[in-house]
Amino acid sequence: MTRTLASQTPDKVGESVLLKGWVNTRRDHGKIVFIDLRDRTGLVQIVSSPELAEGLHSEDVIYMTGKVLARPEKLVNPKLPTGTVEISAETVELISKAADLPFDMGKDDLDLELPTLLDYRGLTLRHPKVKAIFRVQEVIINSFREALKTRDFMEFQAPSIISSIPEGGSEVFPIQYFEHQTYLSQSPQLYKSLLVGAFERVFSVNKIFRAEPSVTTRHIAEVVSLDAEFGFLDSWEDVLEMQEYVIRYIFDQVNKNCARELELFKVTTPALSDKIPVIKLRDAQQIIFERTGRDARTEKDLAPEDEKEICRWSAEKYGSELIFVSHFLTKKKPFYVYPDPADDQYAFSVDLLGRGVEWSSGGQRLHDYQTILKHIHEWGLKEAHVELYLQSFKFAVPPLGGFALGAERMTMHILGLKNIREASLFPRDMERIDTRFSKTEK
Amino acid sequence: MTRTLASQTPDKVGESVLLKGWVNTRRDHGKIVFIDLRDRTGLVQIVSSPELAEGLHSEDVIYMTGKVLARPEKLVNPKLPTGTVEISAETVELISKAADLPFDMGKDDLDLELPTLLDYRGLTLRHPKVKAIFRVQEVIINSFREALKTRDFMEFQAPSIISSIPEGGSEVFPIQYFEHQTYLSQSPQLYKSLLVGAFERVFSVNKIFRAEPSVTTRHIAEVVSLDAEFGFLDSWEDVLEMQEYVIRYIFDQVNKNCARELELFKVTTPALSDKIPVIKLRDAQQIIFERTGRDARTEKDLAPEDEKEICRWSAEKYGSELIFVSHFLTKKKPFYVYPDPADDQYAFSVDLLGRGVEWSSGGQRLHDYQTILKHIHEWGLKEAHVELYLQSFKFAVPPLGGFALGAERMTMHILGLKNIREASLFPRDMERIDTRFSKTEK
Repeated sequence: MTRTLASQTPDKVGESVLLKGWVNTRRDHGKIVFIDLRDRTGLVQIVSSPELAEGLHSEDVIYMTGKVLARPEKLVNPKLPTGTVEISAETVELISKAADLPFDMGKDDLDLELPTLLDYRGLTLRHPKVKAIFRVQEVIINSFREALKTRDFMEFQAPSIISSIPEGGSEVFPIQYFEHQTYLSQSPQLYKSLLVGAFERVFSVNKIFRAEPSVTTRHIAEVVSLDAEFGFLDSWEDVLEMQEYVIRYIFDQVNKNCARELELFKVTTPALSDKIPVIKLRDAQQIIFERTGRDARTEKDLAPEDEKEICRWSAEKYGSELIFVSHFLTKKKPFYVYPDPADDQYAFSVDLLGRGVEWSSGGQRLHDYQTILKHIHEWGLKEAHVELYLQSFKFAVPPLGGFALGAERMTMHILGLKNIREASLFPRDMERIDTRFSKTEK
Repeated sequence: MTRTLASQTPDKVGESVLLKGWVNTRRDHGKIVFIDLRDRTGLVQIVSSPELAEGLHSEDVIYMTGKVLARPEKLVNPKLPTGTVEISAETVELISKAADLPFDMGKDDLDLELPTLLDYRGLTLRHPKVKAIFRVQEVIINSFREALKTRDFMEFQAPSIISSIPEGGSEVFPIQYFEHQTYLSQSPQLYKSLLVGAFERVFSVNKIFRAEPSVTTRHIAEVVSLDAEFGFLDSWEDVLEMQEYVIRYIFDQVNKNCARELELFKVTTPALSDKIPVIKLRDAQQIIFERTGRDARTEKDLAPEDEKEICRWSAEKYGSELIFVSHFLTKKKPFYVYPDPADDQYAFSVDLLGRGVEWSSGGQRLHDYQTILKHIHEWGLKEAHVELYLQSFKFAVPPLGGFALGAERMTMHILGLKNIREASLFPRDMERIDTRFSKTEK
């Protein structure tokens, strides 16, 4: 018999079927045992005799045959897509026996402390609500790709190993590379920019690595960066428009494809007004000062409480949970930022904030070779460290810009997760790679 | 005026247009200058006066306005998609000036030695035939994703940093990770297998890293691996079927979307018979012995000349340029291979060979927790090094298998490239990361 998937059972009432999956839960009611069988499409209820179900418990892998029965109307379970049917078991074969579970996996919410959730990642990833996180993440990443392909962007594979740290910085991981010292890439920025010279519009879904020496709820060492860069800008605002288009496309796809997942987490994608508002850093700081009395009007950046406040303001004034903040200080940004000709101490540099935190950064980049050289010298960098990048601009690149979104951060903030580690299948941080260092090194 | 793309010009005969792009080539004919303008959609011919074109040369970025004219029939260029039109230039604006080129980029074949091709990667990537390689690669990667999504596989992001080398091996890159020694991942094998416990069917497009201490034409340090793994196998041959489906899907998409690129390289995708033939290692060695007199019938693997010979045999006998070789020696394979119950010194392990070389490897994997533990001990490995993996199998995983294809190798062998470095945008090897070490370290 061919396998029937759980999701196909409502269409097979009266038929005999072969189901394959995991015992999700087992409930004994005297002469009847109810088993929720789980496969990649979801759950379906099995009704079995105690004999057939003997010894079965959660996570056992079974193959079972049985008859699909329509449930009486009052027993229909509207919360389950297969809630109109149940399977009357005829044979049950145990394929793979699971050990006893260390905690109850049958609850709607897997109510575990984060370290336990991660210590048992090989098991906890099976929980429907944990799985839902990565279904949403898959849709986010895939719709980022789709949105840009629709606009003629080419996907490229950004390198992970780099030979020098052009922008300096201590938060890099050194690699012993044959006889040489190399590093894990913190950003594909220079590669995507130089590729504009060849392909005009490029994007990549790539790993970036940060050796953050602190433990926060929003940093992990290895993240998935969604990077886009394109040429022939008419204005720095083209970057905002492209980014807004991508964000809206992603939200639409998440709403379309992840309704059940959003419901599980009791969340919606962020509210958007007709256009995502844009505000300059200094104007944002002025507003924050007026609203809170907190005077950060000469700071180079928004502190976490400022990010929260300007998001509140945006939601109140525009009904938008997202807001662009532009015009950061040129000298505090990387060498490739494009200074605003109207006042070159500020740059065409833009962060996207959402629900109180930073979602992305981007902006227009320098394209004139001589200006780039000048910045490289002013920023105290070495030409030899950015040779291929310089080469591309030497042979002419049009006005360009782009942005980078963090896949885990977007997942986290759409679903309202408290810690970014929940939005990474196998989060890496100072204390853990899969297992805790304190444990393995004992 | 809104920008018109080169590819749109044939539909705008008689209209005034604004074009933006690079000067691909310039040909002076007395009172007329022909310029091939290049943008992301290709080339279009501009006709200009010497005055308007003054000083322009290859790779300059220009914005130009002009009128789209139909070419007289005898001047139509059938080799160019825009060959039915030319643009009569009215204004030309120089946006970004290119330096003089170090070699001729206007030839159909960029006839450079590999080191020069890579030394000038920031420029050579602009050549149409070089760009074509990465268009094909994009289609290969994307159709791998599409094929598997159609079959309910979930895309996941495999980690790059790992804390131990469960299978040992010296060809790994060590990372200094805070206070700990970690490594760059050589394969997502254990992660994709453990995820079968949660998602049943998974794939990933991920970087893998090999510290090959030798310089060959088919090894680079950082490659893109196309990995798939799935559960509920009825037989190890399900892995072959899934892989064949994916390969055919990729070839179909390459043929559909990359006709021009295949033509540029004067190649076709490999010929396939109704079904890709499958042969056991020992049978392949016997055939090679009979055909060549070379006796490798007790070897654990096929040597490069054996791979070529068995591919020749497959093409002659079956008309298939691809062939599966199965049943490698259990003890020479990683601990997770599934021994054939009929003769357990051989395993359900399969390589796909194409055009004389290895394209992929895969097979059925162990799923029974006790057998996995036994193998781990027999292989001399430590349980602590594979803790999450073991955890997943402890809580029951169905019969499973999968395979991994190298994106650069496929690109190389479909297009008939001589060196894998040509199939990587920024190839990393013992001698080079972007620039040659011998140069930067002077």
